[in-house]
Amino acid sequence: MSQANDSASRPADKLLFTPGPITTSDTVKQAMLRDVGSRDIEFIEAVRDIRRRLVAVGQVSEDEYTTILQQGSGSCGLESVLASTIPPGGKILVAVNGAYGKRVVTMAEMLKIDVAAIEFAEDVPVCPDSVARTLAADPAITHVCATHCETTTGIMNPLAAIGDVVAAAGKVFFVDAMSCFGAVETNLAECHVDYLVSSANKCIEGVPGFSFIIAKIDTLKQTSGWSRSLTMDLHAQYTGLEANGQFRFTPPTSSLLAFHQALLELEAEGGVAGRGARYKENFDVLMAGMTEMGFRAYLKPELMGYIITTFHYPTDPNFDFEKFYSRLSELGFVIYPGKLTQAACFRIGNIGRISPDDVRALLGAIRDTISEMDITV
Amino acid sequence: MSQANDSASRPADKLLFTPGPITTSDTVKQAMLRDVGSRDIEFIEAVRDIRRRLVAVGQVSEDEYTTILQQGSGSCGLESVLASTIPPGGKILVAVNGAYGKRVVTMAEMLKIDVAAIEFAEDVPVCPDSVARTLAADPAITHVCATHCETTTGIMNPLAAIGDVVAAAGKVFFVDAMSCFGAVETNLAECHVDYLVSSANKCIEGVPGFSFIIAKIDTLKQTSGWSRSLTMDLHAQYTGLEANGQFRFTPPTSSLLAFHQALLELEAEGGVAGRGARYKENFDVLMAGMTEMGFRAYLKPELMGYIITTFHYPTDPNFDFEKFYSRLSELGFVIYPGKLTQAACFRIGNIGRISPDDVRALLGAIRDTISEMDITV
Repeated sequence: MSQANDSASRPADKLLFTPGPITTSDTVKQAMLRDVGSRDIEFIEAVRDIRRRLVAVGQVSEDEYTTILQQGSGSCGLESVLASTIPPGGKILVAVNGAYGKRVVTMAEMLKIDVAAIEFAEDVPVCPDSVARTLAADPAITHVCATHCETTTGIMNPLAAIGDVVAAAGKVFFVDAMSCFGAVETNLAECHVDYLVSSANKCIEGVPGFSFIIAKIDTLKQTSGWSRSLTMDLHAQYTGLEANGQFRFTPPTSSLLAFHQALLELEAEGGVAGRGARYKENFDVLMAGMTEMGFRAYLKPELMGYIITTFHYPTDPNFDFEKFYSRLSELGFVIYPGKLTQAACFRIGNIGRISPDDVRALLGAIRDTISEMDITV
Repeated sequence: MSQANDSASRPADKLLFTPGPITTSDTVKQAMLRDVGSRDIEFIEAVRDIRRRLVAVGQVSEDEYTTILQQGSGSCGLESVLASTIPPGGKILVAVNGAYGKRVVTMAEMLKIDVAAIEFAEDVPVCPDSVARTLAADPAITHVCATHCETTTGIMNPLAAIGDVVAAAGKVFFVDAMSCFGAVETNLAECHVDYLVSSANKCIEGVPGFSFIIAKIDTLKQTSGWSRSLTMDLHAQYTGLEANGQFRFTPPTSSLLAFHQALLELEAEGGVAGRGARYKENFDVLMAGMTEMGFRAYLKPELMGYIITTFHYPTDPNFDFEKFYSRLSELGFVIYPGKLTQAACFRIGNIGRISPDDVRALLGAIRDTISEMDITV
């Protein structure tokens, strides 16, 4: 590990083309060079500003929505929503078209919450009409969960249309927007979102350590006393943050300071529109270069988001993913394995502090690697 | 917040005399100036070394004990043990002599785990004979929880003697050693500990972001399938870490890199003995100075640990804790409020990267502050 004493002498890190942890700016990392007390007024002000700015990123007002910050990974944030906002006797419908939707089903099962899944193939977006029919057929359902960008493939689900049918049926809408929030324009009120979960180390470009839940205040306020866990109790976490600006339990202070700096840098880049434009350009450069080399994307073009892109393995028997991955890593580029049940694929993320020129450098490394490995794509 | 570009230009942080987050070394913070992928071999090696070193800090062997790293706060770590290592139909006895013991009772209740509490006054250590009698009277109890250092007061509970009675009764022993692990010599096997929980930002002197659980492998291996939560499933977390060295869900990479550096610095200081000696000297300097000024410690001397020290408020009507705290904070010293039910007290932590000279500086600031506030102690 680094024994570096200053940023000048530290090793140049590999570029991370992953769904997170992602590459962050130097200034985001340097914001962690502090020891702040978790009850310190400076820290409390940073937490307050983070919460305020995230509501604004969701294009909604603090009168209607609030941000809850929750220690742990993004999955901890998702499980917190399940564990604490579904009433005893409630039932959740999860729209599944990838591994992350499936994970929510598993979480509900382990929490002994009644759960139904409506499953789609991994290369097919969630169909709002199917959701509507399921809701009509099963009045016991109280909550609906969908992912915005399914990181398994990078497919974008039609959030507004799903939200419409959930709202029309009078259900609570819970969205896993882990990998895209902050880089895809989303108005939470227009999409009828009650709870949206994402985490620090995705499109806001912070470092890992916590997740955030943007919640509709009216919905959240009904959940007092429902939690199946002390640490995952979002209503109590909200009440604590509102009362004195403090977390109930020790917060990841360094990650929060980094995230505050990351939010300032999001604003400086032109907010969600500016950030999304850079990621879209990363994606366009990647797709053009990979296509030119002969790689085939897993999804149809019209279904792809610009967050993460899934490619089929080349059929050439010389292709060995582990070797391909390791060689690229040696060259300074970290890509991501696949997570599909149906097809042998790998993934390349377009998010984090990486530029179109960084993507071009990655493409050069891929070109060199397939040549070295004598692979015909 | 800091916009600093290098360590030379960043503001001098206040010294934290708290139970954590604590003051850390510059080199620990600088270890976070990295972007590493969570599947990167360098990161996986750091995680492996962290797990190995923590077992050694507990004076046990990797044949018998293992370390599980768990995202979130120390409380998340405690709740993970409850949520995932107590079988259906199990019952836990919690020995309570402060707020942190009480919190474990609340956690069990929210998880709908059968729980009994044996309560002691906040200035009285847990009595092993009382625990033994309770165990004899209630054969339904399967697990016993005790805190090692109750951070509410700083009292040390007799871990080895409690462990003896728990082992004699054939129960599983779960220890909250949050605030003292790494600075108080503890042999987990001799104390019959099955699960010990602490967190990154205490005596190992890392930054917050995760907790760690040192578990007896034989006991842990029996818990497969018992978890009431996906993210809190310690058996699954252990299995994942053993299989490929990776976390199941995104780890707090920066905090882990800082913690790895902190463990190297613990070794360089002479391990637990060296670290404990410095904290003990901090405590001795603090007690001598506070006593000289007329402050009264809450605990009897023979019950006090050297981790955190609780003092009664002065009886002078001019004393106002908020003003006292704020003035010390302005002077660069952060102390900690009390958490007692019985007495008006404040706390001063002796842990973190602070020296006896730093304690002397704090004492000078306290002297100036009580003089300014015209308080007779």
